Amino acid sequence: MEIGHHISQRYNQELEDIRTRVLKMGALVESQAEEAVKALLERDGKLAKKVASSDYKINRLEVEIDEECTQVIARRQPAASDLRLVIAVVKVITDLERIGDEAEKIATYSIKLAKKPPISAMHSTLLHLSELVLSMLHDALDSFARMDTDKALEVISRGSNINREFDDLSRLLITYMMEDSHNIKRALRVIWCARSLERIGEHSRNICEYVIFLVKGKDIRHTDLQEILAEHFPDDDSD
Amino acid sequence: MEIGHHISQRYNQELEDIRTRVLKMGALVESQAEEAVKALLERDGKLAKKVASSDYKINRLEVEIDEECTQVIARRQPAASDLRLVIAVVKVITDLERIGDEAEKIATYSIKLAKKPPISAMHSTLLHLSELVLSMLHDALDSFARMDTDKALEVISRGSNINREFDDLSRLLITYMMEDSHNIKRALRVIWCARSLERIGEHSRNICEYVIFLVKGKDIRHTDLQEILAEHFPDDDSD
Repeated sequence: MEIGHHISQRYNQELEDIRTRVLKMGALVESQAEEAVKALLERDGKLAKKVASSDYKINRLEVEIDEECTQVIARRQPAASDLRLVIAVVKVITDLERIGDEAEKIATYSIKLAKKPPISAMHSTLLHLSELVLSMLHDALDSFARMDTDKALEVISRGSNINREFDDLSRLLITYMMEDSHNIKRALRVIWCARSLERIGEHSRNICEYVIFLVKGKDIRHTDLQEILAEHFPDDDSD
Repeated sequence: MEIGHHISQRYNQELEDIRTRVLKMGALVESQAEEAVKALLERDGKLAKKVASSDYKINRLEVEIDEECTQVIARRQPAASDLRLVIAVVKVITDLERIGDEAEKIATYSIKLAKKPPISAMHSTLLHLSELVLSMLHDALDSFARMDTDKALEVISRGSNINREFDDLSRLLITYMMEDSHNIKRALRVIWCARSLERIGEHSRNICEYVIFLVKGKDIRHTDLQEILAEHFPDDDSD
């Protein structure tokens, strides 16, 4: 994708503006997700409260970028490749906004969890899942910023690790709940957080699919990815 | 929204085609959600398996409609109001596809739940939540089909009932888990289904917001809806 090949200097600027704003929104969403995870893991109620109440900034950016995209299409009547950019942006920001929602949910549960004793048995699994998800989000945004399809495919291939980690954590939590029924409420809140982390991973994956659609003009959503991944990562033995 | 006001008969036809396909996709998604719920409530493993394996039809429709929208924009360079339609369609079908995903998840859990004895204590609450969510989805699709903003607003106002029902069900399930730790796994699967139902409600709400955006040209996402709702339903005492 080369933005900046238009004769109209203004049009180039408009497309570049949209891209810059998406990156800005991405950075904001990433920092919200990071802080939500930090609040969860470090049981920091104050930080959790801050995250739980700053969602509106992300929401505002989504509405503004949507509006900008609609205006550019109406005014510039973009040709196919620019149009793909604009449509992909409209989709990417929907996923970004929903990542923001999930971060807010994690923060809301973290406020309550911070008031109770920690569940030390699952700290390391939860830490591991968080790291996986946050790195997936980071790299998804990076693949969008550079329009790097190799990276996008690599991020998509990491999805199955997240499912595995989530299953591990669920098993731990079920054991923990069975040990003492007083643990149930607290363990459920942790499961909700893990579910939200899993969703952040799914949205990151969606973003990568839009990057590939954008660059290759090829829609890989809902197709059998195994084939594409096997082609790109012949030595990868993960499923 | 009046489709059909263009001098080009073909262009009218193209917009009408897109609309028809979205309605077709909506009907398919609705029937998937209904069957998933039926499989869950009636513990019908066979039906659950059928639902869990027919997601691909919905996914295919999403990709096709996306493609059609991109082509119409590229070819017709639509004016503002038609453009709003196309952008709203691109957003609506993303939500429809994700409702399909949630129906698939409910079906997958239902396969396992059907093999175990029923949890009779929560049947009526689960039934109630399902009915609420399915009627919300039905009416959201209806508001899209007729471009009926009053109905769209009314559906949005129902969102808080779903949260209440979900909380009731969670409380019941926690009690049930505390009674006997052998219930935990089964109860968790029911909670996952309830969560998916809740998400279907959220996506239905999103669809209604796009209908309002489309007709009124007014973006009500992320704004304080209470004001708008109070204006429309002055006698409604629900929050």
